Amino acid sequence: MLRLGFFGGTGIEAKGLALRFASAGAAVILGSRSSDRAAEAAAACNAVLGRDLIRGATNLELPGNADILFVAVPFEHALETIQASRDQLRAGHVLVDVTVPLVFRERHAEYARRDDESNSEVVARSLPQGAALVAAFKTIPAALLAELDNPLECDVFVCGDNAAAKAAVLAAASTIPTLRPLDAGPLRMARILERMAVFAVELNRIHRRKGARFRIQGI
Amino acid sequence: MLRLGFFGGTGIEAKGLALRFASAGAAVILGSRSSDRAAEAAAACNAVLGRDLIRGATNLELPGNADILFVAVPFEHALETIQASRDQLRAGHVLVDVTVPLVFRERHAEYARRDDESNSEVVARSLPQGAALVAAFKTIPAALLAELDNPLECDVFVCGDNAAAKAAVLAAASTIPTLRPLDAGPLRMARILERMAVFAVELNRIHRRKGARFRIQGI
Repeated sequence: MLRLGFFGGTGIEAKGLALRFASAGAAVILGSRSSDRAAEAAAACNAVLGRDLIRGATNLELPGNADILFVAVPFEHALETIQASRDQLRAGHVLVDVTVPLVFRERHAEYARRDDESNSEVVARSLPQGAALVAAFKTIPAALLAELDNPLECDVFVCGDNAAAKAAVLAAASTIPTLRPLDAGPLRMARILERMAVFAVELNRIHRRKGARFRIQGI
Repeated sequence: MLRLGFFGGTGIEAKGLALRFASAGAAVILGSRSSDRAAEAAAACNAVLGRDLIRGATNLELPGNADILFVAVPFEHALETIQASRDQLRAGHVLVDVTVPLVFRERHAEYARRDDESNSEVVARSLPQGAALVAAFKTIPAALLAELDNPLECDVFVCGDNAAAKAAVLAAASTIPTLRPLDAGPLRMARILERMAVFAVELNRIHRRKGARFRIQGI
């Protein structure tokens, strides 16, 4: 059984992904520094599902109970989240970085990084030996994920340098209906994916929508 | 009538766009430094169309005979192309930059710029007063454009800082069947569009296809 854990489990992105994955049959744990807030987030999701499929846990309990760990904290907290859980991470753990370095300036969404690298590449370097990081789900709107009756009908781009870890995330993503997982190459493609997420937010603003997302034609 | 001119008219991107626009009823001129090569490119397009709808001209003759001028030269030649035609450009001219700063390293497509700016922003600053630059068509595969029987079925992202110029390009793009023009905000969004074009090339390589292109869902 697919065992998924979420760092940043009280956030909208984590809860949306948790709902989609739990609906598809995965064992899902929402993590938080506070076990109370984690339990609250899980209860809110279970109320939506009408079944108790999701549970809460502290961040420290997550790695021991999940094979794929989502980094779904705000982008500027990703590094400290990994650092705080470093002792629990073991070889074979797959981390999925869904963070998007985005800031709003005068109501416009802008890419927050100024150097060449993606947030995912920086986070990947902080992992203990043997754990692998994959970047995925960056371009899927969080609000849409939570609307379970609303089909996703888009692509999820998955990139990473560890082939087995990438394959595991592609397989996990393929369990969500109407979502097409696409191999998007090495981890440095996250530089583009993170900007595409910003682009989608800007398209939403310009066109007064909230669910802009990508579908690749021709593949 | 829509009067369109192409700098870099002998290239595959220009010829592809010329075929699509001429089929949609526009007056199209392919420009080159050499009038012979421009005439050859036009003849090759007219052979595909089965009608003489496209003509060739030197770059210097382009601005006087077109209202919308496409910059379809290789990205590293865009600035010198504008410089060479600067005296012919007048206020009211709309330039459409379709260039993508892309290099191949070990068979991988990579974004070629290392600073924060897009190629389009650099080119825009080189224009004479009153002429306006819009970035568009960067993410549409050149090879697909030339296959007239193949519907595009994708979005064309149009960004720019001059509202009238952007509206003119959106209107022009809307004449091409199955292509949806989308306002993509200010010119600096070209920083993302240029990288998305690189992303599409990489997706083609990974998945052994050649027509990867974008469709936004939810708008």
